[in-house]
Amino acid sequence: MRRVDQVDFFYLSMPEVTTEGDGSQDALLVRVAAGACTGWGECEASPLVSIAAFVCPMSHGACRPVGASVVGQRLEGPEDISRIASEVELNSMDLLQAPHTWSGVEMALWDLLGNVREEPVWKLLGYREAFPKLPYASQLFGDTPARTYELAIEARRQNYRAMKFGWGPIGKGDLSTDAEHFQAARQGLGDDVLLMVDVGQIFGDNVEAAAARLPMLEKVRAVWLEEPFHTSALDEYASLSRRGKVKLAAGEGAHNFHMARHLVDYGRVSFIQIDSGRIGGIGPAKRVADYAASRGVTFVNHTFTSHLALSASLQPFAGLHSAEICEYPFAPKALAREITRSHLERNSSGYIAVPESPGLGIEVDVAAARRYLVPVEIKAKGKVLFASSDQI
Amino acid sequence: MRRVDQVDFFYLSMPEVTTEGDGSQDALLVRVAAGACTGWGECEASPLVSIAAFVCPMSHGACRPVGASVVGQRLEGPEDISRIASEVELNSMDLLQAPHTWSGVEMALWDLLGNVREEPVWKLLGYREAFPKLPYASQLFGDTPARTYELAIEARRQNYRAMKFGWGPIGKGDLSTDAEHFQAARQGLGDDVLLMVDVGQIFGDNVEAAAARLPMLEKVRAVWLEEPFHTSALDEYASLSRRGKVKLAAGEGAHNFHMARHLVDYGRVSFIQIDSGRIGGIGPAKRVADYAASRGVTFVNHTFTSHLALSASLQPFAGLHSAEICEYPFAPKALAREITRSHLERNSSGYIAVPESPGLGIEVDVAAARRYLVPVEIKAKGKVLFASSDQI
Repeated sequence: MRRVDQVDFFYLSMPEVTTEGDGSQDALLVRVAAGACTGWGECEASPLVSIAAFVCPMSHGACRPVGASVVGQRLEGPEDISRIASEVELNSMDLLQAPHTWSGVEMALWDLLGNVREEPVWKLLGYREAFPKLPYASQLFGDTPARTYELAIEARRQNYRAMKFGWGPIGKGDLSTDAEHFQAARQGLGDDVLLMVDVGQIFGDNVEAAAARLPMLEKVRAVWLEEPFHTSALDEYASLSRRGKVKLAAGEGAHNFHMARHLVDYGRVSFIQIDSGRIGGIGPAKRVADYAASRGVTFVNHTFTSHLALSASLQPFAGLHSAEICEYPFAPKALAREITRSHLERNSSGYIAVPESPGLGIEVDVAAARRYLVPVEIKAKGKVLFASSDQI
Repeated sequence: MRRVDQVDFFYLSMPEVTTEGDGSQDALLVRVAAGACTGWGECEASPLVSIAAFVCPMSHGACRPVGASVVGQRLEGPEDISRIASEVELNSMDLLQAPHTWSGVEMALWDLLGNVREEPVWKLLGYREAFPKLPYASQLFGDTPARTYELAIEARRQNYRAMKFGWGPIGKGDLSTDAEHFQAARQGLGDDVLLMVDVGQIFGDNVEAAAARLPMLEKVRAVWLEEPFHTSALDEYASLSRRGKVKLAAGEGAHNFHMARHLVDYGRVSFIQIDSGRIGGIGPAKRVADYAASRGVTFVNHTFTSHLALSASLQPFAGLHSAEICEYPFAPKALAREITRSHLERNSSGYIAVPESPGLGIEVDVAAARRYLVPVEIKAKGKVLFASSDQI
């Protein structure tokens, strides 16, 4: 019988990490081994803390390290992944970081199973066909409207048919500055390129501040306004959705299925954005995709890191023809580009294909990853709980 | 000007930690120093991971370590605590463990401010009077109904006027076993002692399994059924609330104000149970207490650890006369009892008083804490990020 024999974590980082809102500055790769088979996954954000949640000492029966529910488990089919997921949920109930840690492991288990069965993960999820996705270039706003304009020009030059600007100065200054950035983006993109705007929770729970931006967003024909508020601020999302015609998008902070569902049902978002590296992996993300489809809401991946994470975030909605748009890292740091040999490149129509090859269909470049490896050692209670190794 | 000069964490643990659902087996004490003043707080659950979230390297601008938003900050009044809280929320947005780490720090900041102003924290929160609370003995179910009966007898012998049994075998076997435990509890307590039942999320999102227990809970006059489901399973809570007369209680897993509010508004719980060591500290817990009162829902603390954590969890509803019941660790491990010199003891009527002394009103027993100190060392990127010290 196949069992999970080993789980290894590799904390990778750019030599310098800055305060810009660019999530591609570090990564936490996960490799799972079961017998002679392996699979790869990637946890989103804060590698050290996610490693600690895998190896920490138990606090009590409902606060065990994630590793305790994973290593040694049977792994024959998808039903084993959901069984392990349930055990993690109960056994690590009081360990807040657990869903982020488990997400990368869960992806790696799917990748491994796909390799064993020689099928792409989306087929294991029940889809018969994977439809091409239209990537939008995901990019931070420039520091000035002039820089935002240049970035938009560059995206159009690269034949992107959709672009999302995010974070940066929006919501931090006066309304007119924001309006100038939105207009610069639209002008740079021209009339035909889709424009999305992401404000990174800048308004907290201030509905009026967010509502003040709606007319200018409508004017530049924004496809959506993303994350005006905290992920859990459902009532604020619902209030804002009634204030104008601009559609709302959110969900990257959801760390379980329920949170995403509530953004749909109570928050009235039109686009639900799920990161497989946070929500508990590909299984719960697929459940959100199904639920969103049943409610007429569009599923979109959230991905700002490597193409391994990108593939894992595309699998859950690969077979949904109507959910066509996908997030695509536009200008990631070298780390995020280099740690995989395979890349999901756009074709001449501007679309990308979800991989047809087994598992997640992404080959990790081990030699490249080694160049970014961060040495880590965690000791507690007289034991070495984790030591980074060169055995990558 | 007073500033946060230093934040120290002390990971304490019993020599042996078992899988029983007893949260008093370890603790994470936090000491904050600002000038000559100090304050103490306590984070709930998984000390190593919460320490890692304070010291980890930054991943990007919205995924910084909690420490980066705390150390060096101005600390003159309560408004500074809420300002720092907002900074933590934005700067550590993508760091899932952050609210648990911040909770203990936040408590310590209130304790420190109370010490400076020579006022109890509940006065700083705006309450003019602190009402006595009726503690319920919080205890795990026995392994057998006979053992549950003995525990109930013991609680009655100790003059508790209310008792909560939790976890253990409930929901894991057949209905008749659960019924026997409930009946044994009621028989042991006699007719007059209040009985609460906590099932520790055992039913996941299975409404029918939970509903099957409602008639037997009604029969033994349970004040509430606690945590039948995952904290985020709002729809399941709402469904169950319509299935019988038994009132529902939940909220200990809420790690921000919104989550607690949604349990009230969408989950239709009658009791909202907040742990100041998880929700982001005393400030957001007070906000929940106010909101619950406005909705006719009863606020209850969640506390299964030390009397420092107990005091911190009582402050947010100290001045609410109608919220009389409080959770009270019945038989905590030696660690949880010994690490404070002060204890909130019951008076002859069975009530406890929220401390009138400055801050949280609890003196930490440093010598006792030292006996339980866990050596920890965290290294990354060639630096020692954390090393436990004897400087407690």
